[in-house]
Amino acid sequence: MMEQMEMEKITTKRTKKPRKPASDQVKLSKKVIYFFGNKKTDGGKELLSEMGGKGAGLGEMTRIGLPVPPGFVLSTRLCSLYRKEKKLSAPLVKEIRKAVEKLESMTGTRFGDPSNPLLLSVRSGAAVSMPGMMETILNLGLNEKTAEGLAKLTGNECFAYDSYRRFLQMFGDVVLGIDSRAFEKKLGEEKRKAGVDDDAKLPLSSLRKLAGEFKTLMTATTPPPLEGEGQGEGEILLEDVHWQLYQAIGAVFASWDIPRAAEYRRIHNIPDDLGTAVTVQTMVFGNMGEDSASGVAFTRNPATGEKRVYGEFLVNAQGEDVVAGTRDPLPLSRMRDWNPSSYAELLEVCDLLEKHYLDMQDVEFTVQKGNFWMLQCRRGKRTGKSAARIAVEMAKEGLITKEEAVLRLSPEQLSGMLHNQVDPSAHKEILAEGLPASPGAASGHIVFHPERAVAWSAQGKKVLLVRPETSPEDIGGMHAAQGILTSRGGMTSHAAVVTRGMGKCCIVGCFDLTVHLDENRCEIKGEKFPEGTLLTLDGTTGEVLRGTVSTIKGEFSTEARELLQWADTFRTLKVRANADLPEDAAVARKFGAEGIGLCRTEHMFFGEDRILAVRRLIIANNPEARRSAVQEILPMQRNDFMGILRHMDGLPVTIRLLDPPLHEFLPRQKEDIEELAKTLGLTLEAAESLVDRMREANPMLGHRGCRLGITHSEIYEMQVEAIIEAACLLQTKENVRVIPEIMIPLVADAAEVKILRSRVDSVAQRVMDRYSCSLDYTVGTMIELPRAALVADEIAEQMDFFSFGTNDLTQTTYGISRDDAASFMPAYEEKKIFVTDPFASIDEKGVGKLMAIAVELGRKTKKQLKIGICGEHGGDPASVAFCHKLGLDYVSCSPYRVAVARLAAAQAALRSAGPIKK
Amino acid sequence: MMEQMEMEKITTKRTKKPRKPASDQVKLSKKVIYFFGNKKTDGGKELLSEMGGKGAGLGEMTRIGLPVPPGFVLSTRLCSLYRKEKKLSAPLVKEIRKAVEKLESMTGTRFGDPSNPLLLSVRSGAAVSMPGMMETILNLGLNEKTAEGLAKLTGNECFAYDSYRRFLQMFGDVVLGIDSRAFEKKLGEEKRKAGVDDDAKLPLSSLRKLAGEFKTLMTATTPPPLEGEGQGEGEILLEDVHWQLYQAIGAVFASWDIPRAAEYRRIHNIPDDLGTAVTVQTMVFGNMGEDSASGVAFTRNPATGEKRVYGEFLVNAQGEDVVAGTRDPLPLSRMRDWNPSSYAELLEVCDLLEKHYLDMQDVEFTVQKGNFWMLQCRRGKRTGKSAARIAVEMAKEGLITKEEAVLRLSPEQLSGMLHNQVDPSAHKEILAEGLPASPGAASGHIVFHPERAVAWSAQGKKVLLVRPETSPEDIGGMHAAQGILTSRGGMTSHAAVVTRGMGKCCIVGCFDLTVHLDENRCEIKGEKFPEGTLLTLDGTTGEVLRGTVSTIKGEFSTEARELLQWADTFRTLKVRANADLPEDAAVARKFGAEGIGLCRTEHMFFGEDRILAVRRLIIANNPEARRSAVQEILPMQRNDFMGILRHMDGLPVTIRLLDPPLHEFLPRQKEDIEELAKTLGLTLEAAESLVDRMREANPMLGHRGCRLGITHSEIYEMQVEAIIEAACLLQTKENVRVIPEIMIPLVADAAEVKILRSRVDSVAQRVMDRYSCSLDYTVGTMIELPRAALVADEIAEQMDFFSFGTNDLTQTTYGISRDDAASFMPAYEEKKIFVTDPFASIDEKGVGKLMAIAVELGRKTKKQLKIGICGEHGGDPASVAFCHKLGLDYVSCSPYRVAVARLAAAQAALRSAGPIKK
Repeated sequence: MMEQMEMEKITTKRTKKPRKPASDQVKLSKKVIYFFGNKKTDGGKELLSEMGGKGAGLGEMTRIGLPVPPGFVLSTRLCSLYRKEKKLSAPLVKEIRKAVEKLESMTGTRFGDPSNPLLLSVRSGAAVSMPGMMETILNLGLNEKTAEGLAKLTGNECFAYDSYRRFLQMFGDVVLGIDSRAFEKKLGEEKRKAGVDDDAKLPLSSLRKLAGEFKTLMTATTPPPLEGEGQGEGEILLEDVHWQLYQAIGAVFASWDIPRAAEYRRIHNIPDDLGTAVTVQTMVFGNMGEDSASGVAFTRNPATGEKRVYGEFLVNAQGEDVVAGTRDPLPLSRMRDWNPSSYAELLEVCDLLEKHYLDMQDVEFTVQKGNFWMLQCRRGKRTGKSAARIAVEMAKEGLITKEEAVLRLSPEQLSGMLHNQVDPSAHKEILAEGLPASPGAASGHIVFHPERAVAWSAQGKKVLLVRPETSPEDIGGMHAAQGILTSRGGMTSHAAVVTRGMGKCCIVGCFDLTVHLDENRCEIKGEKFPEGTLLTLDGTTGEVLRGTVSTIKGEFSTEARELLQWADTFRTLKVRANADLPEDAAVARKFGAEGIGLCRTEHMFFGEDRILAVRRLIIANNPEARRSAVQEILPMQRNDFMGILRHMDGLPVTIRLLDPPLHEFLPRQKEDIEELAKTLGLTLEAAESLVDRMREANPMLGHRGCRLGITHSEIYEMQVEAIIEAACLLQTKENVRVIPEIMIPLVADAAEVKILRSRVDSVAQRVMDRYSCSLDYTVGTMIELPRAALVADEIAEQMDFFSFGTNDLTQTTYGISRDDAASFMPAYEEKKIFVTDPFASIDEKGVGKLMAIAVELGRKTKKQLKIGICGEHGGDPASVAFCHKLGLDYVSCSPYRVAVARLAAAQAALRSAGPIKK
Repeated sequence: MMEQMEMEKITTKRTKKPRKPASDQVKLSKKVIYFFGNKKTDGGKELLSEMGGKGAGLGEMTRIGLPVPPGFVLSTRLCSLYRKEKKLSAPLVKEIRKAVEKLESMTGTRFGDPSNPLLLSVRSGAAVSMPGMMETILNLGLNEKTAEGLAKLTGNECFAYDSYRRFLQMFGDVVLGIDSRAFEKKLGEEKRKAGVDDDAKLPLSSLRKLAGEFKTLMTATTPPPLEGEGQGEGEILLEDVHWQLYQAIGAVFASWDIPRAAEYRRIHNIPDDLGTAVTVQTMVFGNMGEDSASGVAFTRNPATGEKRVYGEFLVNAQGEDVVAGTRDPLPLSRMRDWNPSSYAELLEVCDLLEKHYLDMQDVEFTVQKGNFWMLQCRRGKRTGKSAARIAVEMAKEGLITKEEAVLRLSPEQLSGMLHNQVDPSAHKEILAEGLPASPGAASGHIVFHPERAVAWSAQGKKVLLVRPETSPEDIGGMHAAQGILTSRGGMTSHAAVVTRGMGKCCIVGCFDLTVHLDENRCEIKGEKFPEGTLLTLDGTTGEVLRGTVSTIKGEFSTEARELLQWADTFRTLKVRANADLPEDAAVARKFGAEGIGLCRTEHMFFGEDRILAVRRLIIANNPEARRSAVQEILPMQRNDFMGILRHMDGLPVTIRLLDPPLHEFLPRQKEDIEELAKTLGLTLEAAESLVDRMREANPMLGHRGCRLGITHSEIYEMQVEAIIEAACLLQTKENVRVIPEIMIPLVADAAEVKILRSRVDSVAQRVMDRYSCSLDYTVGTMIELPRAALVADEIAEQMDFFSFGTNDLTQTTYGISRDDAASFMPAYEEKKIFVTDPFASIDEKGVGKLMAIAVELGRKTKKQLKIGICGEHGGDPASVAFCHKLGLDYVSCSPYRVAVARLAAAQAALRSAGPIKK
């Protein structure tokens, strides 16, 4: 066994004052090099964060007796030290040298010994997989002498010089920072000269020549930035194999910070201070001739989940060649013919690994002169479809429990199954990128006006609605369109929220796009696109594509459905849907919604048949005139409510009273105002003055929600009348079990709900008396303003339930308007001010603290107070987990997210219940 | 002594189930009738809430031996019972009868006995003074027989029938609800017939006739709504003196709910459930002849504070006549000639009362046939000037302590001294009313454009700026104008906030006003007012007046200044001012500011000389161009800062980095955009598109504050450079002691301040190095978003101080835009949803809770964290008291509120220190 090596020793020996801050010492006084080989290992999967994924996998495989070439792992903790000091400390260098000596004695080779050289691979490997993001160097230990020696030893000069020129190329690129195209250019020239198109077919003379040319390239370059004892002090010491090793280790540590790796971490929210481990391993060669090969395999099919080893291999090649695409690899099934025993060994190893890891694995292997070696194993990435099938089948095979199976499918994978996708194999030309507001893909003719979208769609044309931004009056056009593209707005702008509700693809905040509504055209990066141009939107990536690009239709697999049924047995949170229309309610029920958590009534005000009455209501300057206007709307609203309540027979339906400011129901364009004046019998001046007077500086914080209910009591009274009439009619005439929940929006003070609740109750009683019908209706409120959360104890006295409106609560808590955030959000994300978008996942520190206060205060007043959430966050898995933790009764989300929320709720319950039993 | 009477007895005897909810029982098992007379009393000032102001005063005066006619008081607690049951309970009636019997035996008279009738007054009196709001009935106990008897007894038939017709008139009006004009009409007819113009001169025949006619009027009316045992069961029993009494008591209780009383309570925030007491007192008569009189007196002058009894009296009159204005009362000095001994008694009583109550008193007295009687004493209302003088002089006289003196002047009285007032004696015609946004009065020619205001003002004209609303670009015009009038906006709209800062009168939200900017005119209720029309604004009342109305200039009195100096010795809160300009800083210092708590830098961006550079900055699309634009602004900003820092030599100056969204610096009108295009060399289309792109849906929640600092780092860097350069120059060249505090606005997350603080520090270090100067600058943040309060512990790690921006904090906590609130705030106030306007006084339950969280979390991180407030609330006395309670270090307010805040801070400190020692 490798002797314990203390980081402390390594870092402190050279300094006169060995005292470091205590916190540093704690971190460093730990083992930092882990050895594996000969069925023994210093660590395996339990040391993932120390050894990285690759190192831990190699250790684990060694431990369970698989054929793994010996090697050692430098801890991830050394990475941050290296990044700070930009060199390996002398004591660490000594320890590395000792580890190399151990490898020498174990393999019977010697590092730098031409007669029997130890050759090494140096690879990165973080605790979280970052495939291809960092650097790797193979064949290390080759120089002029050992290359010659390897040739002699193997009797294969081509192999030896091919390996040598590969090493030089990688080292030059990774350590010395030489543009890899310089090497590729020379390689290309030699292939042309030799008349071959495959690297493996280059004759020895070319390979030797290349090695020489590569070395010339490298020595002509400026010395690498590395320095320090035994590390060359800035000189290039290519013939010194130890120098090679130290430089390579440093370069791999340093590759943690190369831009693509940093970007990958940013996208995947991987902490910057995690660091990579470095695995130094004895080389085995798949390029040692026709009896050698390299390959990759998945223990089950990563695309379909089928239970059969799946992968590719390449004869006489190193691992890199399999994935590089320079030669065409063969399917694994062909391996049986090439080397039956290696193939059998692979299948056996795969089976063993699955039984050991209880999950599908992604492995790399090499066959060196007929000997089978494992070089990597890790959890295999897979599609949603595959994940569901593997999870269900493994549970049925008894490998994992149903609980574990439910945890195996990520909510996003589940959601992804539903959306149409741009065919990955299709050619695409990206015109612009915006925010991926609602996933899916759609092609169609662009139009700029909602009416045009409706008209063209009625003619059977597929259209995409392109707008600067959308507003509630565009809703018809949005329904008609296949997808929506806006130049402005953020992830929770009107367009984004509404389209996610519709399960329709949408891209917002596409700043390269300028929409010229008057001229019926748009412009992207200087190119003009008239109405009717065919485009494709990829709402999953945010890409705007030229022309029609083929798409693949999405749906849940059988296994996904089965997993969801299992999930339902584990969750405690109920899942409801936000739905404004009977059609939406039907979709929601299909996806398993257990009620409607938010039925917005304002969309019902925009219909052609009622907008006129709404506008008459707005200009009415006395309660009488207002009452007469709302009475026109009443029968239509009653009908709307009957539709939804009928669909949700037996399930609760939360209906929110009118929320938006009234000016949203007035037109904005001059022509429309003229039209308005005509219809209402006003002068143009009066109409303009009306529109102007109603205008608000900050409509989000304006005269809306229950404020409207207080000042325009006729509206809420009409709505309550319509709801209760609808419910009475259904209950008495159609025997439908109705459970209406009336919800008051934008409450800030208990006095508001006190007044409104008594009005609601008195209207409800009057209607029930009229129908001689008794209903179990309840009255509750949105908690969507910080103040409502802060005085929730007082509000709860008046209310039967709370529903968190986390969109507005996030906007007001942060003081950020979702409609205006696009101009600074990219900078905020780039600078990591927002690690996650608070409009996508509940901000637990701020908004979440208010929610916790509201839950605590509300339940202090009423222990059994029903509390849900109906903001966009209700469909976000992390937020669902948070809601579970808060002890909410339900989450409500868009119909298309219901299944996702069911799964997320189950996972939250399972995770909070502690470790899963196997 | 009156025997203890238990409410419980009164209310429960008649019901079979005496059990009431426990809480009711607790309230009711208390004494409800208090007797006073013959130097003994059941209670005095200690029972204010039970006996009401009038009753407690009478009890107290009785106790200290003053001549008070005996009587009894029905507790305020009976009021709410009466309002609920609409009658007096039988047991209560019995107790009243017993109290009357006690009066009979004490006075040797009998109620209803013609030979020597007991006559009573029945008066209201709540714990809080509501002068003239409720009802009174005098001379009760008179009927056909007792009137005749009284005539005989006094030998003065005129007196007897004058008293009788007065009683009938009051009873008819108050109890029976007969329009008082019916009585006045008959009285007028009789005076005409008799050829007299004074009620007192009516001959006996007329008086007798009037009594008869009044009775006819009364019996013709519908029975009063009162009923119940001994209360007439709906019949009119005018001859029954007991019936008179019960009806009168009921009517006085009921008068708690008459509209003027309810409205008065609404305006003065008096709780509705307080209720009034009823005082039943033996009548004494000032109208018993030329040796009788009634009068009112203040122990010191209520207008000036001069230490001399001040008041009026009327010979041969009842108290009502003195204040009714039907006869001209005489100044008290004339009383000496009329009856020297009564006058001497009055002066003695006044002196005694002041020494007893230790405050200036307002008393009512009656002289009956040469005998002096006290009928009322209460704390005298007074002007601010008077309050200050009385407080200072009483302290110097040794009557009260300096602490008490400081508590005697209300902050609003102090503030009122400063404002010009519309001369109360001037004739005024009110054209419209708006919200009184900033007090004071101003006359001038109306103009509609800021440039016109500047131009006319430069010509020496006084102008009023009239706008739909104001924006930061109007600032020049606002400075030039005498007052501002806007048709839109609420109490914290831009116009309101800025004018309060300037101490300039302003009316906002004047909905009867329509401003036609294009036509250079406005309209009020259909009347057109062209530019140049003379108007007067009364910012104290919100009235818009026609023409020029004369005004009175305001300033602090000598005593007010002295009180303020005393106040400074008691307060712990520091008081700073919000000032953007050197002139403002000078004013602030004059008013005693101990620093600048908020210097907004955005106003500095609007100057003609810099707006162009600002606009170049906005259109710049790369950091280079932005940097070059801000470099133009730098020297001007540095100059601004030097001006302010110089004025505040030795005191801290908190400078807030740029806060508003950049689009505020772009024009809105088409012509101005054309101008913009020309200046910046853009096409009109490009300029319009720029303005359009910059537009925000909710600018309040948009790309502003530190978000701008994050995305446009050049701006903040320039500002920091300008601040530090200014400070270095002053410190090194002018030996000014500079204490700059750099404040970052609109922070929501610690990550924001972390980035910005390090940028600030690095710029500051660079500049200090350049000047070889070391400054004690600090860096802090506004806490103006709920999230900042919720994560204040993290933010405090990066910051040296917090400053609450309670304007924005209130807006976001409530989700109310101050610019849009005017449309629903009146309804909210009317319905008492807002008992106080949260933009005027800190909402302690909601916003205050967040502030408390922020203080607690902030000081958990940094125990000595300096915390202040710079929102508008900093000048509101209630909010200042709350800030004292929270333990803030300072409040900052507009320069003209500094003295108010000093006084309020002292009062808060004194009040929180417990009862004041005398």
